[in-house]
Order: sequence, then C-alpha cells, then structure tokens
Amino acid sequence: MPSSRPRLVMKFGGTSVADLARIQNAALKVQKEVKNGFDVIVIVSAMSGKTNELVGWVNETAPMFDAREYDAIVSSGENVTAGLMALTLQEMGVTARSWQGWQVPLKTTSAHGAARIEEIPTDNLDKKFDQGIKVAVVAGFQGITEDGRITTLGRGGSDTTAVAFAAAFSASRCDIYTDVDGIYTTDPRITAKARKLEKISYEEMLELASLGAKVLQTRSVELAMRFKVRLRVLSSFENQTDNSGTLVCDEEEIMENSVVSGVAYSRDEAKMTLVSVADRPGIAAAIFTPLAKAGVNVDMIVQNISEEGRTDMTFSCPTDQVKRAEAAMEEAKNSGEINFHGLIADQDVCKVSVVGIGMRSHAGVAAQMFEALSDEGVNIKVITTSEIKVSVLVDRKYMELAVQALHDTFGLEKAA
Amino acid sequence: MPSSRPRLVMKFGGTSVADLARIQNAALKVQKEVKNGFDVIVIVSAMSGKTNELVGWVNETAPMFDAREYDAIVSSGENVTAGLMALTLQEMGVTARSWQGWQVPLKTTSAHGAARIEEIPTDNLDKKFDQGIKVAVVAGFQGITEDGRITTLGRGGSDTTAVAFAAAFSASRCDIYTDVDGIYTTDPRITAKARKLEKISYEEMLELASLGAKVLQTRSVELAMRFKVRLRVLSSFENQTDNSGTLVCDEEEIMENSVVSGVAYSRDEAKMTLVSVADRPGIAAAIFTPLAKAGVNVDMIVQNISEEGRTDMTFSCPTDQVKRAEAAMEEAKNSGEINFHGLIADQDVCKVSVVGIGMRSHAGVAAQMFEALSDEGVNIKVITTSEIKVSVLVDRKYMELAVQALHDTFGLEKAA
Repeated sequence: MPSSRPRLVMKFGGTSVADLARIQNAALKVQKEVKNGFDVIVIVSAMSGKTNELVGWVNETAPMFDAREYDAIVSSGENVTAGLMALTLQEMGVTARSWQGWQVPLKTTSAHGAARIEEIPTDNLDKKFDQGIKVAVVAGFQGITEDGRITTLGRGGSDTTAVAFAAAFSASRCDIYTDVDGIYTTDPRITAKARKLEKISYEEMLELASLGAKVLQTRSVELAMRFKVRLRVLSSFENQTDNSGTLVCDEEEIMENSVVSGVAYSRDEAKMTLVSVADRPGIAAAIFTPLAKAGVNVDMIVQNISEEGRTDMTFSCPTDQVKRAEAAMEEAKNSGEINFHGLIADQDVCKVSVVGIGMRSHAGVAAQMFEALSDEGVNIKVITTSEIKVSVLVDRKYMELAVQALHDTFGLEKAA
Repeated sequence: MPSSRPRLVMKFGGTSVADLARIQNAALKVQKEVKNGFDVIVIVSAMSGKTNELVGWVNETAPMFDAREYDAIVSSGENVTAGLMALTLQEMGVTARSWQGWQVPLKTTSAHGAARIEEIPTDNLDKKFDQGIKVAVVAGFQGITEDGRITTLGRGGSDTTAVAFAAAFSASRCDIYTDVDGIYTTDPRITAKARKLEKISYEEMLELASLGAKVLQTRSVELAMRFKVRLRVLSSFENQTDNSGTLVCDEEEIMENSVVSGVAYSRDEAKMTLVSVADRPGIAAAIFTPLAKAGVNVDMIVQNISEEGRTDMTFSCPTDQVKRAEAAMEEAKNSGEINFHGLIADQDVCKVSVVGIGMRSHAGVAAQMFEALSDEGVNIKVITTSEIKVSVLVDRKYMELAVQALHDTFGLEKAA
C-alpha cells in the first residue's frame, strides 16, 4: 500500500553538490518540496571533480581496463554524495536515508561502463516511505547486473537514473538541477537575445540535446518521452518559483507551438568528401556499410550529380571519428569494394540547426533559413532535414553569425 | 569442491596502498605469492588520507551523525583501492577481481561504526577460485547487516577483516603488510638495541597490542588466537624473504619461550586518585560501577591501607576519559553513593610493561623489574600484573629511561 503523498524526483549534478555548502543548498530545496507535500527521491552525482579523479586513476593503472572494475571504482563518488546528502537532510530535521544502486536494487544490463536500466523494483523504497521516510537519496549513475556486479550508465547517466526513477515511482515531475537555469532558444554566449523557454516538447529537446545543447543527456530525454515523465531543467544556484527553469513535456501540454523553438550548433563536425567515386547501383551501401562497421556515426550525406560514371560523395561525422573513417575507406578501397580518387577531410566546419515542432504544419522554414544565411553571405555546404529540424554545415568562421541571423529571422527573442 | 591450491590472505594498510605506485608495489608481492602456488585473498584499506577526508566531511555535515550513513560514506575508500588493486594485478597478467563487503557478503552485527563480523560465506569466492581466478581482492573494514545496510568495523578494522577471511578460508597464513617490518622487543625509537622478534605468541601480542604497540588491532589478534590463524606482520616497503617480519602464532610453535619478550609503554594513561574515601564494605563497587557505566576503561586499581575509616583509592584510565571519570565521580558523590574529599587527576604519568609468556614458569620477573627501576631512581606509582605481564605507572619523564633499563635488564637485545 504505497504512501499517498505525491512523488517528486530531484536530481542534482556534480556542480550542484560540489562541496558541503552546495550540498546544504541543494538539501534546502529538497526540504522545501517535502514541506510542499511531496515524498522526494533525490538522485545525486559525485561531487564535481571526484569522478574525473577516479577515472584518471583507472586509466593510469590500466589503459585497457576491465570495465567491471572501472564501474566498481568510479561508482564510489556517487555513494559519498548520497550519504552526505542524507546526513544534511537529517540535520535539517527531514527523515532521509541513502541508497546505493545495489540496495535499491537498480537492475541493469551487463554492458559495463554504458549499462542500460532494465528494472527498478519499487518495494524497498515504498516500504520506507510508508514507514515515514520523506526523502530517499539514491546514488545516481549506477546499478547492478543480475550476478551482482556494479555497473555504471555512462557519463551523465545520473539524468537517466532520475528519469527512470520518476517513471518507476509515477512521480509528478522530475526536476533536473544543474548549473544553467533552463533551455534557451540558443546559446546565450552567442547572442544576448537568447530567451529561456518556459516549455519545450520532448521531440524538440531530443533534437537540441543531440545537436549539442549539452544540458540533458539524450538517453534521459528519450526515456522521459517514452514514459511521459515531465522533466524540468533548472538552476540549483537560484531561488525557484513555479515558473523556474524549462519544462520538457509532451507537445500537447504546450498550448501554442512555435514554428521554430531554437537554434542549435555543433563545432564537433567534420565534412568528408570521397572524390570521384566510381558510381554504380549499390555504391552508397558499399561506402556506408564499412563506415558503420568501423563505428563511425555518419550524420549528413550528399551525393553529387554523377558525370561520366563518377560522382563525389560527401558525408559528415564527429571530428574524433575522422581517422577511423579514413582508415575504413582506405580498407574498402584496398579490398576493391569501392573506388575513388581521393578523400578530403574538412574539419573547419560546423553544424547549425533550427528546431521546431511547428515545422510539421508550417512549410517554408527551410527556404526562410537558406535565405537568411544567403543574406549574410554564408555558404551552405551540406543540408539535412528531419520532420522538425533543418541542419546545415557551414564554414566554422560563420558559426556565430549564422546562429545570430537565424535567431533573428525566426523572431526567437520574443515569446510565441 | 574447493580449489586445491593452498590459500593465503595478504592485507595491505593505508600507507601500503597510498598511491598508484604503492599499489603496484603491493601487487608485485601478491603476484609472487600466486607464483608460489597460492590462491590469494587480498584485503585492502583505503588509500591513506582518504578515510580521514570522508570522516571530516561527515563530521562537518552532522556532528551527531547517523552511523548508518557514516558507514555508507566512509566505506567507499576501500572500494576504490580494491578495484585499483584488481586492475593492477590484471595488468600483470594475474586473474583477479574485486569484491565489496556486500558482494561477499561479509555479514556483521548492526552496530554501525563498530560492527562485529558474524559470518563470511565462502561459496562466492570459492566458485571464482574454482573457475580459475587467482586473486580475490576484498575491500576491508566493511560488511553488511541482515537488512542490507553497510557497516564498518571501526578504525583499523581491515586487520580484523583479514584474519576473519583467513579463518573462513582456512588460509595457510595471514600476512599483514604495514609500514614497519615486524614486532620489536620495544620501540626502536627509544632504544637502538630493540630487536625484531621472529615469532611471538598470540597472548604476548595481545598484551603488547593493548599496551600501545600499535602495529595490530587488538581484535584481530584475539580473532587470530581463537581460530589459530598464523599471522605475519611485515613491511610492504622491503623485499621479503621467508624469515621476513614477525610471525604471531600459537606458543607451541615457538620452540624456546623467552621469559620476557618485550617492553611496551603507553603515554596515554592518567592516574586518578580519590582522596580520603569513606571506607566501607562495597566501596569498590560503588566507585567502579558508575565509572563503567560512564564508559571509562579503568586499567589499574590500588587501594591504600585504611586509616580511621578512610582510604585513598587510585586508578588509571586513558587520558581522553579523565573528564568523563571526573563527571561520574562527582555525580556519585552528589547522589550520596560515595563520599570523598577530593579527586586528583595526574596526567603526567605513563605505563611501562614487560610481557613474556615465559613468566608463567619463571618467578621473580616482577622483583627484577622493580629492582632495575629502583637502580635508576624511577619511582613506581601503581603496579598491576597478569599471568604474562607486569605493568607499572611512573612519571612520564622517566618513560624512555625505564624502557631502556628494562630492555637491558632482561637482555632483550639478544635472541633467546
């Protein structure tokens, strides 16, 4: 018989629990929500710097480490914060206790270092809530396999832990406390006109997250979308009001969708061109299958018009995968699978994207985007589109200019 | 069906695993024992300084902390070392994995912060040894309660963990690696004539440990004696030979017992005198029951000859318990249980003891001790004896002189 109080999940990242004073500050926010009538599940990261210290030791000890030992070591940072948070709450008179991943138990796959959550049984925590505990502090980022070994969920995995708990415990909301106060129409460092969004849909957030707005881990947004977890991103360094932060929610909860909600960018893109590829049916498969096997995440693809049986094939991938892509292409050439004259890697590019769920019902967003860029003299190298986004690859030197121009064109400084 | 290889337990304290280089050094010693044919259980402490850092955070957060959270936090240091040690061994080609207390599971009482080991099931580790693992690295100092909460065994508890594993797994020996190379006839800082003992009996080691030779935790020696675990104390900073360190073992394994094996001392003693106590039957109980209730560890007791119905009662206790003893005596006086004219606390004393299992069969050790001290002009304030030790309280300024004189008198610089 679960406690009848509504549940809230609150997640505090590394900078929000960096030292005892910040843990104190975070605990005050938890106390406030308890007073508001919630049973709270708090998910904590390691104190900032601690995980890096542990990872550094592992890498120095064993460059090709056993991921099971890595997980056992690296997960210890969160355990410390969880205990300290529980003690801090107790000092404030809030009944609280800590749980480590294996105590919940948060069950995961055995993909050590990047495990996926399989199940979160609710009975252990429910029993304690029923007995009067008001706050369960849970160490984020970690779980256990079926045979009882510790796993971690990958960097930033505490966001995913938080959303998974919110889903398992049917929480009213999952609040992600971080060092920014919400999701913006674009990076405020690029234009002062950037405006904090009050709400954003899961789909838009996913496009923004994977495009380089590094506030939320992509997996956590996917999970929130699947289980319809209302996710709020807000700053732990400000006093909250009901409208603080940005709510990531179902599009139905957003009264009037903007055509374009935000402009994202990513410096971490390279443009690869296979020059003079012998064109034939199946050539695309012959190129992209070896790239996929080599673990290269190809994003955009453009094939030029074929002339005299040869064509240029251009694609983009993260800059740190360029070497891998080159090796895969050389190998495919040597084995006779494909034939090309040269491979040009251009790392001096960036990706700029406009994202908006309203695009579905509004034609002409792409055209308006291209025109705005053209007006500024920005040459577009590659284009890719999805239902709710248009991305272009441009020279890196134009990045700020392009972002500002698009922000202006779509009138993002004003609320919809 | 357990692996047929003999078992060895090796324990490394905080200074022996203080950084990655020292963990490497310790791992080399483990590798050597694996080559010698042992299946090894390695018990590790936290890297030195780590436990103090964690304890500091706990105390700063909550001076009257919840011991369950304290344990969850403080135990994390050992987990880190265990993983790093396993990785280091793997890098050397030794099949190894780490275990945290709950994974073994090492079952304890629920006396958080000072839990006692109740059971160490052997099946989990045995199964892995059978599958070919050569080294099980276990985080020391920690266990779990029946309801799955983390406990710690008290400071220095890793020694106890090591001995308990040696008993549970019928290990051939339990090697305690520390920063000294064995047990000495006395503190080498006090006299250069101090000699390393090759062997010492459990009983003698217990007297020495509790008397202030801080090499081994008393509980670990008690446990070793009870389960006849052969315990070897040796330095992790030296290359070992078969005769390295000191073997703590059953007295039957020691061919020729010395009359006196060692001279111990402790600065941490205070002499308390209740002046002019109204003497009556039951007065000792009236004094020492409230002291025991107040948690004062009374060591020596002397009652003067009674004159005119009044006497002086002298006892000793650790210096950090003086205030507690004073409060308990004042309270007993106020409640009318006892009556005395004054309470004098003399903290300018120390305890010097001679210990030797051979005393049992040799009379005259006490007399020889008193004479040696008298020859040096050292006044004895209180005396206490057991079957294998004689202790005296003397002025602190005489401590070094007394230790040197006794070391000479009993010829401890020469092997028996």
